[in-house]
Amino acid sequence: MEENLMEKVMEEVLKQLGDNKETPKGETAQPKANIGNPGLTEFVGTAIGETIGLVIANVDHNLHEFMKLDPKYKSIGIIGGRTGAGPQIMAADEAVKATNTEIISIELPRDTQGGAGHGNLILFGAEDVSDAKRAVEVTLKELDRTFGDVYGNSAGHIELQYTARASYACNKAWGAPIGKAFGVIVGAPAAIGVVIADTAVKAANVDIVGYASPSTTSFTNEVILFISGDSGAVRQAVMAAKEVGVKLLEALGNEPAPSNTQPYI
Amino acid sequence: MEENLMEKVMEEVLKQLGDNKETPKGETAQPKANIGNPGLTEFVGTAIGETIGLVIANVDHNLHEFMKLDPKYKSIGIIGGRTGAGPQIMAADEAVKATNTEIISIELPRDTQGGAGHGNLILFGAEDVSDAKRAVEVTLKELDRTFGDVYGNSAGHIELQYTARASYACNKAWGAPIGKAFGVIVGAPAAIGVVIADTAVKAANVDIVGYASPSTTSFTNEVILFISGDSGAVRQAVMAAKEVGVKLLEALGNEPAPSNTQPYI
Amino acid sequence: MEENLMEKVMEEVLKQLGDNKETPKGETAQPKANIGNPGLTEFVGTAIGETIGLVIANVDHNLHEFMKLDPKYKSIGIIGGRTGAGPQIMAADEAVKATNTEIISIELPRDTQGGAGHGNLILFGAEDVSDAKRAVEVTLKELDRTFGDVYGNSAGHIELQYTARASYACNKAWGAPIGKAFGVIVGAPAAIGVVIADTAVKAANVDIVGYASPSTTSFTNEVILFISGDSGAVRQAVMAAKEVGVKLLEALGNEPAPSNTQPYI
Repeated sequence: MEENLMEKVMEEVLKQLGDNKETPKGETAQPKANIGNPGLTEFVGTAIGETIGLVIANVDHNLHEFMKLDPKYKSIGIIGGRTGAGPQIMAADEAVKATNTEIISIELPRDTQGGAGHGNLILFGAEDVSDAKRAVEVTLKELDRTFGDVYGNSAGHIELQYTARASYACNKAWGAPIGKAFGVIVGAPAAIGVVIADTAVKAANVDIVGYASPSTTSFTNEVILFISGDSGAVRQAVMAAKEVGVKLLEALGNEPAPSNTQPYI
Repeated sequence: MEENLMEKVMEEVLKQLGDNKETPKGETAQPKANIGNPGLTEFVGTAIGETIGLVIANVDHNLHEFMKLDPKYKSIGIIGGRTGAGPQIMAADEAVKATNTEIISIELPRDTQGGAGHGNLILFGAEDVSDAKRAVEVTLKELDRTFGDVYGNSAGHIELQYTARASYACNKAWGAPIGKAFGVIVGAPAAIGVVIADTAVKAANVDIVGYASPSTTSFTNEVILFISGDSGAVRQAVMAAKEVGVKLLEALGNEPAPSNTQPYI
Repeated sequence: MEENLMEKVMEEVLKQLGDNKETPKGETAQPKANIGNPGLTEFVGTAIGETIGLVIANVDHNLHEFMKLDPKYKSIGIIGGRTGAGPQIMAADEAVKATNTEIISIELPRDTQGGAGHGNLILFGAEDVSDAKRAVEVTLKELDRTFGDVYGNSAGHIELQYTARASYACNKAWGAPIGKAFGVIVGAPAAIGVVIADTAVKAANVDIVGYASPSTTSFTNEVILFISGDSGAVRQAVMAAKEVGVKLLEALGNEPAPSNTQPYI
């Protein structure tokens, strides 16, 4: 009977504690269950990375000016999240390809819920609210895919992004040449990023578009490499970085957990 | 008897865990019990937001220069906290009205214990240490009130501030016109801040004093709107933003908990 | 029997919870067990502060340029951690004295796993990979010592550093006069840093080398004082700051825990 009781107690205790648990601090927060439209016309939806998608049909005239928006955009689509910048930017890149919108601005706060990386704020501009809304919807949907190659543990994270054809979001955020294959390699803590950047460029014949370190990346503890070139080569470079990065992360912390979506590269 | 035992076990377990618990990462940390003066003349007190109030009667002559203090201030009052900037600045604003001190500087670190917002460091200058101490005391006392409209959950936070008559702290930190009604609207993640800024300015006829986003706010994941104007209008704009903001926060995370003090707006 | 059962249940519950616990958010994270070389030539080792030591024998030619490295350094040593900047810089300072390497760069991300301070990224340059590797090894080994005077609790942290003879890492990061005794005094939240900086300079006749606050320190919630001068005086100033700092931290949070290594100052 004692054994039986013990089990029941443990079950109860863990259940009660589970109910009270906060979102863990890790870099790959699970998506919140969408509780549905809170009854606001501005609400579009939510997705992984504690990302929210919103829309304003007619931005207030005075605010428009303070936000330094181009007068031609009456409507804006808004994507913002606590965890991640790469996944949201890559997803927004697909949204720009698929809709009649433009990227107004991409800002990268220092965030990830106490982790080593970024959160994000992305604004789409549109003349019509339906276009802005569509861009936000596409972005939220794409996030399941673009979070596919994010690996985090207690020590940091590795993030890999690849697109066969970069568009305006990648260009705005990172200077990616439009229309060409493009890859992003992130390592945190930054020391790991240095090594996997070197691994990537040695693995295939790619062009370096940029190299970012803490003092140039909102003071996050990341080194980020941006590469462009032949589609196969970019992919190969990204894959090589991933293999080494996961091993180094494992050497520093516990086994890196992939985010809950499928690798896509 | 089993039931009885179960209850006792649960009680004991939760008590023990509670004792070991760290301050939660949320943006509305509970105030620490003041353990009393640690026996230092510099110590004034503590308050909500892990805020500490300190005073230096005679700042060391050489340090004075490195801190770039105006020579006329022999004494300084110091307010600093891990969580929040708005509440501390609004409280300091009351302190400046009530005492013979001036605001020397207001700095906003990226903090909130891993949350999406700021901590703070506020310096008061005074010719006499009793004035500096009084300013710190007033600030600590006002914090119970100014934390009244902060709402946080696992996803982020909403913060609302309102004063019928802005003074030198609001002016120094945010450019508020002195003597006029002034409001501050904060949304984190920043995407929520964009929408509630728009909501606020549509709700009443107010002047926009400023609009801040991650790249201009210590890389926090916040958008902040500053408004001025007629007292009733500012209040109405702030209230409208609060209503929408809490709903959006709820759509992204769990139910936002108000901080432990009473709404004051 | 009931008492006995209670004890057993508590033991089991706490064990299970302990196993699931994440690295605490505090500023003095325990070192991860080194799981050994992950089979990569770049891996050197790990140490306290979630610090990793790496080396690249031949940095890729194109990346070399993007990293703005001096062409004469074929090899680089890399130190990077999530928690702490002072300990790693002081340790790197010893490494530079002991090896044929130079400090290329020191960058201080906003980190400490959600705490109030920094992480770090330090690059050593060398013509030969064995020198770079040796510098990384010395740094990792010294960290046990240089983490000796770091005190953290739920409210913040105090960090004290002292060297009888500053070298190139202290000079690069903080402008320390080379060859002279040098001390670093860190207080977080920043308000505590202000008071202990004042305490330090009043306690002994030292030269102030610099004073840093949130807007100049990657937006961390720290005030940092840098002092130089006679060896005994620097040490005395640092000790005085430590005594007051620990008391203030205690007044704001729970009892500050020293990091797991021995005080060395």
